[in-house]
Amino acid sequence: MRKILIVGAGRSSAALVRYLLDRSAQEKLKIVIADISVDHARKLAGDHGNCEIVELDIFNEASRKKMVESASIVISMLPARFHLKIAKDCLEFEKNLVTASYISKELMELDEEVKSKGLVFMNEIGLDPGIDHMSAMQVIDRIKEKGGKMLLFESFTGGLVAPESDNNLWNYKFTWNPRNVVVAGQGGVAKFIQEGKYKYIPYHKLFRRTEFLDIDGYGRFEAMANRDSLNYREIYGLQDVLTLYRGTIRRVGFCRAWNIFVQLGMTDDSYVIEGSEMMSYRDFTNSFLPYKPHDSVELKLRHYLKIDQDDVIWDKLLELDIFNPDKIIGLKDATPAQILQRILMDSWTLKEDDKDMIVMYHIFGYELDGRKEQVVSNMVIIGEDQTYTAMAKTVGLPVAMAALSILNGKITEPGIQLPISKEVYDPILKELQDHGIEFKEKKEAYLGYNPHNLGA
Amino acid sequence: MRKILIVGAGRSSAALVRYLLDRSAQEKLKIVIADISVDHARKLAGDHGNCEIVELDIFNEASRKKMVESASIVISMLPARFHLKIAKDCLEFEKNLVTASYISKELMELDEEVKSKGLVFMNEIGLDPGIDHMSAMQVIDRIKEKGGKMLLFESFTGGLVAPESDNNLWNYKFTWNPRNVVVAGQGGVAKFIQEGKYKYIPYHKLFRRTEFLDIDGYGRFEAMANRDSLNYREIYGLQDVLTLYRGTIRRVGFCRAWNIFVQLGMTDDSYVIEGSEMMSYRDFTNSFLPYKPHDSVELKLRHYLKIDQDDVIWDKLLELDIFNPDKIIGLKDATPAQILQRILMDSWTLKEDDKDMIVMYHIFGYELDGRKEQVVSNMVIIGEDQTYTAMAKTVGLPVAMAALSILNGKITEPGIQLPISKEVYDPILKELQDHGIEFKEKKEAYLGYNPHNLGA
Repeated sequence: MRKILIVGAGRSSAALVRYLLDRSAQEKLKIVIADISVDHARKLAGDHGNCEIVELDIFNEASRKKMVESASIVISMLPARFHLKIAKDCLEFEKNLVTASYISKELMELDEEVKSKGLVFMNEIGLDPGIDHMSAMQVIDRIKEKGGKMLLFESFTGGLVAPESDNNLWNYKFTWNPRNVVVAGQGGVAKFIQEGKYKYIPYHKLFRRTEFLDIDGYGRFEAMANRDSLNYREIYGLQDVLTLYRGTIRRVGFCRAWNIFVQLGMTDDSYVIEGSEMMSYRDFTNSFLPYKPHDSVELKLRHYLKIDQDDVIWDKLLELDIFNPDKIIGLKDATPAQILQRILMDSWTLKEDDKDMIVMYHIFGYELDGRKEQVVSNMVIIGEDQTYTAMAKTVGLPVAMAALSILNGKITEPGIQLPISKEVYDPILKELQDHGIEFKEKKEAYLGYNPHNLGA
Repeated sequence: MRKILIVGAGRSSAALVRYLLDRSAQEKLKIVIADISVDHARKLAGDHGNCEIVELDIFNEASRKKMVESASIVISMLPARFHLKIAKDCLEFEKNLVTASYISKELMELDEEVKSKGLVFMNEIGLDPGIDHMSAMQVIDRIKEKGGKMLLFESFTGGLVAPESDNNLWNYKFTWNPRNVVVAGQGGVAKFIQEGKYKYIPYHKLFRRTEFLDIDGYGRFEAMANRDSLNYREIYGLQDVLTLYRGTIRRVGFCRAWNIFVQLGMTDDSYVIEGSEMMSYRDFTNSFLPYKPHDSVELKLRHYLKIDQDDVIWDKLLELDIFNPDKIIGLKDATPAQILQRILMDSWTLKEDDKDMIVMYHIFGYELDGRKEQVVSNMVIIGEDQTYTAMAKTVGLPVAMAALSILNGKITEPGIQLPISKEVYDPILKELQDHGIEFKEKKEAYLGYNPHNLGA
C-alpha cells in the first residue's frame, strides 16, 4: 500500500478524498487524512477501509514530521500560510508535495533544493489557480504550435450560486470564504493592458468598471478587474500580448450594488468601529453618514450616494436589512469589513439544499495566417450538494489527479511547479472531462478593443 | 554669549532666525545655523555679527555631536524623521531641545531619561501643531476655570494663497510642501465624533463631506476632516466632549474639484505608472479611463465622473492642462501622486510677488451656569513676502520664543513636552500678538449639530 497523506480536510477536500478512495483498491492506496478537528474528515471517509483519520496539530512538530516521514506523497489542503512548514518537512524526508495555492515567495526559495533532490512540489493546481492555468495554456500552446501570434488574453472566474438556488436580489450567496468576498479587490490598484495601453482602476472605482459576459444557456454575467493581470505575461509566455485582463465574475447588477458598501466605507478592514458589539445594523450604516438627527438614515444614504427612488439597488439594501434598529451586530472590536460580513451572512449563507456554481470564461485573440481570430472558451459547473460542491470538485479533483500522477511517475519534472506544461495539463484536463468538468469553445472573428484600428 | 544651535534652515526658519538675531545683542546670543546646504542660511543671516553658518551633514556623527555639545540649546528644524538623532545627542550632552513637529513614539520613549536629567524637550510648537494647541488650550482652560463644561470642540487650519495673489480657478497655490497637499487625507479613515456619535469617512469620500466656514472680511471657506480628531480628547483633556472634529481649510470649491483626482486614482502614491517618463499629461489622464479609442479623453472623463457641460470643475481641469498631448511628464518610474504633483506645480507654484495666508478657525461649545454658548475664534495671517511668509512666521516665531524662554529659565517643566500648559502658552500667545499673530473671538448661542435635541 502507498500512503497519501492529506493534511487539512476543509470544505474543498470532499471530491479529493472521494476520488482517491474510489481508486484506492486498484491503485493500492492508503489515504491518511490529518486534521486538527477530525469530524469533517470522518464524514468524508465514511467507513472506507483504505482511509485512516488522524488528529494532528501541525504546530506539534514531532507528530507532523512523523506523519510526513511515513507518507509516500503529501497533499496540503491547509490555509496557504501553513504550506511552508509542510514543504520543509517534505524536503527533509524527500517526499513529493501537492497544493492548490499560489506559490509564495518563501516557497519559491526552496526551488533549488527541491530540484537537487529530484522532488516535485506541484502548486496552483486547484480551480483558480489551477484549472484556469491549465485550460488557458492548452489553448495558448495550440495557437502557438499552429504558428499563431497571441494578441489578447482575457480570463474570468466566479464562484456563484447555481440558478436553481438563486433566490435573492443580489443573485449571490457565499459559496466560499465570505471574508475574501468582502475584501475582494483591496490591497492595490487593478492594473491591466488593453491594446497596448496600461490602465489603472483604484479600488473605489473597481465595481463601476465592469464588463458583460454572455454564456449560452446561463445568460449574462458581469466581471470586475483583478489586481494582478500583468503577472500573467511572464507565467503564460505572453510578453508581447496587447491585451491582458483577468477578472472576477458576478451576476449582472451585483457590482453596482456592492459599490454602495465600498463608497460608504463598509468594506474597510483596517480599523475598528467604536462600540461595535452593541451597535444595531442601523447604527452601523449611520456611522458612515453625516450627523443629522432630523433626517432618516434612509434618506441620508439615498442623498449621499444619489440612489433614485426606483433604483433596484435600494431593494437589495433593504433585503440585507441594513436599516434594522433591532438587529445587533454582537462582534466586539470589529472592523467595518467584519461587521458587513456578519450582516451579509444573515442573507447569503447557503441553505441545506442550495447548490453552488463555478463559471470560468476565457477569450484568446490571435493572428494566424494573416487573419485575426478569437477563441472564446467557457466552463460552467454546478455542485452536486453541499458536500460535493462545484468548488470542492474543481479544486479537489485536479489536486487528486496530480498527486496520483506524481505517485505513479507520470509527472516527474522536479522543482516548485505549477501546471503550465503540456505533459501536466493535457492528461488532467482530459480526465476532468470524465467528471463533467469541461470547456465549451467557439471560434469568432477577432473583436479586440479597437476593431477599426483608430488612433495610434 | 549663549549659543543657540539651529539645525536645518529650510523655508520655515526665516522668521525664527530674524527673531533671534533681533534679540541677540540684548540677550547675549550667538546664533549658529547648521545645514547641509548653507545658501539659504547665508541669505537669512545677512552680515549679522552674531550669526555663524556651519555646513553640517547630520549623518556625520562626530561633527554633529561636536556642534550639539558646544550649544546652550538646540532647535531642530529638520524634517521630523531626523529629530530623534538630535534628541539623543541632546540627552548625551544634557542640552534642551525645541522642535515644531509631532512627538513621535520613538521620541516619547526618551521621556523618562529626559525627565531624570531635568531637560526640556519642547515639541509641536509651530503652527499646526503649535499655535492650534496653544490657542485652543487657552480658551478651553478659561471655560473650565469659570466652571464651564466643554460640549464641542472643532478646529480647522489651512495654508492658502493670500487674496491679493489669488488668481487661479482653484483659489490655491502651493505655499508649503506640495507632496503633503497631494497625499493629504490618505493612510486611514477620517474618524470623529459629533453629538456623541462616531463618524467615519473613507478617503474616497473625504472631499465630498466638507463644511463651510465664514470669516469676517475674508468670506467663505470650506473644510474637510482630518484623520486624527479623536487623539485630541486625551491631549486637550476633552474626554467627555460630545463633538470633536479637526479639519483642513480650503477655498470653497477646491475639494469638489480635487475629488476628481481622487476618483480617477491620480493621488495614489503606492505604485509606479508604466512608462511615466515619456508620457504626456493627456496619456496620464487617459490611463485612468476606459480604453475607447473612438472617444475623446475629455468625453470619457466627463461621462465617467458625471461632470456636467457647464460645471466649473471642468474649467479647473482645463486650467491645469491635464488633457495636453504635448506636455511630457519627464519623471521616471513615478507614482500617480508624483506625476500629479508635477502637473500641479506648473500652475500652483507661487510667483515672486505672491503672498501666502494662514487661516485658523476654532469653535468651542460649552455649558456654563445652565446656559449653552459657543466661542468662535479665528486667526488670519498674510505673509510679508516669499521669505517671511505667513507659514514661516507662524511656525518659526513660537519656536524662537519657546527656545529663548527655555534658555532664560522661564519654561522649566522637564520631559518630552508640548505647549498645552498655561505657563507655556500664555506668554507666547501674548508675544505673538506683537507680531500680528492674534485671534478674533466672538461669543454666540450654542449651535451644535442637534439644536432641537432630536433623537437620542
